Amino acid sequence: MPKPCIFSGISRRGLIGALTLLPALSESLLPSRAQGAASGDPLPSWNGGAAKRSITNFVDRVTREGSADFVPAAARIATFDNDGTLWVEHPVYAQMAFALDRVKALAPLHPEWKDKQPFKAVLEGDMKTLAASGEHGMAELVMATHAGMTTEEFEKIVRDWFVTARHPRFKRPYIELSYQPMIELLAYLRANGFKTYIVSGGGIEFMRPISERVYGVPPEQVIGSSIKTRFEMRDGRPELLRLPEVNFINDKGGKPVGINEFIGRRPIAAFGNSDGDLEMLQWTTLAGGVSLGLIVHHTDAVREYAYDRDTSFGRLDKALDAAAINKWTVVDMKDDWNRVFAFQ
Amino acid sequence: MPKPCIFSGISRRGLIGALTLLPALSESLLPSRAQGAASGDPLPSWNGGAAKRSITNFVDRVTREGSADFVPAAARIATFDNDGTLWVEHPVYAQMAFALDRVKALAPLHPEWKDKQPFKAVLEGDMKTLAASGEHGMAELVMATHAGMTTEEFEKIVRDWFVTARHPRFKRPYIELSYQPMIELLAYLRANGFKTYIVSGGGIEFMRPISERVYGVPPEQVIGSSIKTRFEMRDGRPELLRLPEVNFINDKGGKPVGINEFIGRRPIAAFGNSDGDLEMLQWTTLAGGVSLGLIVHHTDAVREYAYDRDTSFGRLDKALDAAAINKWTVVDMKDDWNRVFAFQ
Repeated sequence: MPKPCIFSGISRRGLIGALTLLPALSESLLPSRAQGAASGDPLPSWNGGAAKRSITNFVDRVTREGSADFVPAAARIATFDNDGTLWVEHPVYAQMAFALDRVKALAPLHPEWKDKQPFKAVLEGDMKTLAASGEHGMAELVMATHAGMTTEEFEKIVRDWFVTARHPRFKRPYIELSYQPMIELLAYLRANGFKTYIVSGGGIEFMRPISERVYGVPPEQVIGSSIKTRFEMRDGRPELLRLPEVNFINDKGGKPVGINEFIGRRPIAAFGNSDGDLEMLQWTTLAGGVSLGLIVHHTDAVREYAYDRDTSFGRLDKALDAAAINKWTVVDMKDDWNRVFAFQ
Repeated sequence: MPKPCIFSGISRRGLIGALTLLPALSESLLPSRAQGAASGDPLPSWNGGAAKRSITNFVDRVTREGSADFVPAAARIATFDNDGTLWVEHPVYAQMAFALDRVKALAPLHPEWKDKQPFKAVLEGDMKTLAASGEHGMAELVMATHAGMTTEEFEKIVRDWFVTARHPRFKRPYIELSYQPMIELLAYLRANGFKTYIVSGGGIEFMRPISERVYGVPPEQVIGSSIKTRFEMRDGRPELLRLPEVNFINDKGGKPVGINEFIGRRPIAAFGNSDGDLEMLQWTTLAGGVSLGLIVHHTDAVREYAYDRDTSFGRLDKALDAAAINKWTVVDMKDDWNRVFAFQ
């Protein structure tokens, strides 16, 4: 029986019809989280089970010169979903927390929001009414908080938020809530000649300011959902203005589309955790040739969260069935990871 | 007085509302054109004038550690227009020649084209009627020739065309009609830590099959115009189907938009040749910080072509005026290049 969920009316698609970009955070504000392990084992936070073996076996096969499965370095493309695959997505996506915080921060400039849904619900903490506003309500929140400024201005807003915001359960900055085993995996793949990409339903300009710091992934290797922008010369200065209009939703069938548009090569490895990643895994693994598909299964309510088929954030249902059929690796977070976060 | 032009009704925007991608051509079919010079001078095809000095001075400033203008390697992004900047765009864009050839090749499957414009005009070689069909006509040709197949199928069509097609004046494959000085410039920038991107109004999936071979630019560093695609599982195989619908026009104000979406960093150097590159040059050079803007001016009717304000392919008018105001380097093809093509 589905677990009752306050946000059951809100899909990722509805949440994220907007979002952004540009360079990385200033070195002094946030610690780097992208380093690999210094020990001999490049994946020390992974227990030595079938999941870990499937990864190291795959990497051995595609990197060993003379192997029948050898893949030249230029074609070693690996794509990673972000929310729930590389960092925490419960109780709500980080970007949703950002949008709600922005509504509160902007409320003094918008006295009309006190009487206007879904803003009223946000300001009063009325999550039930907010959830009832559905995708349309969420789109309104995103457009009100993610558009109407230049790309540079939005980048600064995002950067500042990541410095001050805290996760409600772990009481830490969101960038500390990336999964240590996945950070190690990213570094391990790069050490083996892979180019690692983030391919997220989340906003491209919401992730880019932190992707290098947190994951060692530069902004040009981040693919995500986006709103439209318009070029303008303003007082002799070139600007891109963020418009309240969806450009692209990089989720579900949109993921192969985004991968094809941004990269122009088919990945040989893809990593996800939800039904939003199903098509990316199909695109990566079902066209012939050696490949790796992997799904992070959230099974650890003690150290993180446990959920799959019955959740509004990161529902894993069809993709879990497909994993069995297609022999994708399913990571049991509780059993396969000896550590979830670096701080644990 | 504007020179009469058979294609005066056709803009690049109209021509290219479509187009595509994927890996590079098979090694055996085409020679590599992306190597730099072996001599001590990394730019041997450039005469030693102000244009060449502006390039080498800029590179010296941004790469010398301790220099006030030093730029870390990760931020050394250089963007190059393609048609008319890296290779020949007259008498018509290569992609337009491709579209016309495709109409002829597909005609036996479309008997109705014999009586239907603009296809009839193409089949009869009636360029006047074709030109009169304007942007709408061109869009019809593009959709009929660039959509309705999978991305893999289109890649093969493009690849095959580049092997067999010949430029009407030079009687050589189009990939031999890249400018040797620009090939050297791409290699010189990469040798100095730059990441080089193609940012073209042309179709992203038309350029990607040859970009590595011709320019040393991998598919993931090619940005261009595109049509929409849709993911489908067909008989258990994942496919992206090319749809007859414009996705993005990467020209004029679209260039900064595309750069921002794909790269997420502002370039520090931009290279173009026409008004379609104006906004990219503004975005790159007018936001403060050290930068280089450069325009290739076609002044050499003997070795290539001579045109600027009065042409339908690569019109250089506003951007030429802006170059003087903004101190962009203007390359006089005749005086600044001692060689245009590698075969000369």
